Amino acid sequence: MTATLVLLRHGESTWNAENLFTGWVDVPLSEKGEGEARRGGDLLRESGVLPDVLHTSLLRRAISTANIALDGADRHWIPVRRDWRLNERHYGALQGKDKKQTMDTYGEDQFMLWRRSYDTPPPEIELGGEFSQDGDPRYAGLGAEMPRTECLKDVVARLLPYWDSAIVPDLRAGRTVLVAAHGNSLRALVKHLDGISDADISGLNIPTGIPLRYDLDEQLRPTVPGGTYLDPDAAASAAAAVANQGR
Amino acid sequence: MTATLVLLRHGESTWNAENLFTGWVDVPLSEKGEGEARRGGDLLRESGVLPDVLHTSLLRRAISTANIALDGADRHWIPVRRDWRLNERHYGALQGKDKKQTMDTYGEDQFMLWRRSYDTPPPEIELGGEFSQDGDPRYAGLGAEMPRTECLKDVVARLLPYWDSAIVPDLRAGRTVLVAAHGNSLRALVKHLDGISDADISGLNIPTGIPLRYDLDEQLRPTVPGGTYLDPDAAASAAAAVANQGR
Repeated sequence: MTATLVLLRHGESTWNAENLFTGWVDVPLSEKGEGEARRGGDLLRESGVLPDVLHTSLLRRAISTANIALDGADRHWIPVRRDWRLNERHYGALQGKDKKQTMDTYGEDQFMLWRRSYDTPPPEIELGGEFSQDGDPRYAGLGAEMPRTECLKDVVARLLPYWDSAIVPDLRAGRTVLVAAHGNSLRALVKHLDGISDADISGLNIPTGIPLRYDLDEQLRPTVPGGTYLDPDAAASAAAAVANQGR
Repeated sequence: MTATLVLLRHGESTWNAENLFTGWVDVPLSEKGEGEARRGGDLLRESGVLPDVLHTSLLRRAISTANIALDGADRHWIPVRRDWRLNERHYGALQGKDKKQTMDTYGEDQFMLWRRSYDTPPPEIELGGEFSQDGDPRYAGLGAEMPRTECLKDVVARLLPYWDSAIVPDLRAGRTVLVAAHGNSLRALVKHLDGISDADISGLNIPTGIPLRYDLDEQLRPTVPGGTYLDPDAAASAAAAVANQGR
C-alpha cells in the first residue's frame, strides 16, 4: 500500500498582506490569496492528484483556500472534516500586532525566539481582549484545552491526536487526503512525518498555495523525504520569500 | 424540545440563466446566484439563525451557495455532510435541453407533465452521452441506485432514507441544521415535513437564496405549517416568478 497525503497551506490573508501576527484571528484571504488557492486547484487538476477527503482547520483562510482549490479541481463534492487541532499556532498576546513593530520593540533575538524557537511561546493573550477567541462558539467544546498561547511544540502536541485518530484512518482506507491548514500546523505535521529534529524544524518554511504531496509507505513514512511540491520551482522561490517575512 | 431546520435552495446557476434543464449536470452559480447566496448569508446572520451543521448535495451550485452563505454568517467552520440523496431531480434525457424548445417540441401538456407531475419521469438519459453522469467518480458507489431519470416521487423515495439516517439524528441532538439543496429535493423534503399530498405538491415552489426556517416539535412536525421564510416578502414575489419559469 502507498497512501497519498497532500498538504496545502492557505494563500495570503489580509493580515499576511498587512504584516500582522494572525494566529487564531479569523481573517479572510486577500485577493492574492484567492488567486493562490485557484492556482493550487489548477496544480491538483493538472497533476491528477485528486483528493478523496478534505481535512481543514476551523479558520476561514484555510477553509476558503480548500473550497476554491477543490472547486477548481472538480473535487468540491468530497467529504469534509474540520478540527481546531489543524488551526494555526495560537500567537498569544502577539495576535493583532504588527510584526515589524514587534521586532523593533522587542529586538530581533526575542522576535525570532517567538517566531521560530520550538518551545518558547509568546506571552499569553488576555481573556476578553479584541483578538482573543474566548467565547467563540466554534471553540465552545474545548474547555481547558483552549490555548492562550502556543509554541510549535504545543502545536505538535495538540495536532498529533488528530493525525492519529482522523487523518491516519482515511489514509489507511486508501483515500487521497488533502489537509488544508496553516504555516505552523503544517510544519508540525511535516516535522512528525519526516522525523525532523526540534532544532532543524525552525529552518523549514512551507510556501502558500502550492500543494505538497507525500506518498507514504505501510508505516506511513514518506517514500520521498520532504515530499514533492506540485510546482517545485515556485515552491523554492516562495520558501525563500517566507523566510524573510517580517524583515 | 424544538429542533430548527433551515432549508436553502441554491441561487441562480448559469443554466438557470440560460433556461436549460440541469438536473445532475454540475453547473456553477451565475454572478446573480452568488449574490443570492450572499443575501442568504446576510439573512441568517441578521435573524440570528446560526446553523450548527450543514448538509448539501454533491452538486457545485448547492455547495457554493452554502459556502458563500455560511461564510457571510460567520459559520463557515461548522461540520459538513454531503450526499447524492440531496441532489436535484435527475432530469433524464431532458438534461442539457432548452426549456422553451422542449415545450415547443412536445407541447405544454407533456412539458408540464415532466416538470410538475408527481410520478411521470422524463425519458431515460442515454449512457455515455454529453450530459450523463455515468463514470463520474462522485457516484461510483451508487451501483444500481444510480438514476437515469427521476420524477418527484423517485426523489422522495431516495431522499427519505437520508433524512431519517443523517438529518434527523442531527436535529434530535439539538443542532440547528442547514440543508442547502435544490428545487426538487427541497420540495420532496417539504412534502414530507408538511404532509402535502401528491396532487398538491405540484403547486409548491421554493424560491432561491431565501432561507426557509422550520421549527419542529418532538415528532419533528412543523410548529408552523410551511415554515417561515427569513424574508417573507421576497419569498412571495420570487415564488411567483419561479412558477412562470419556462413560459
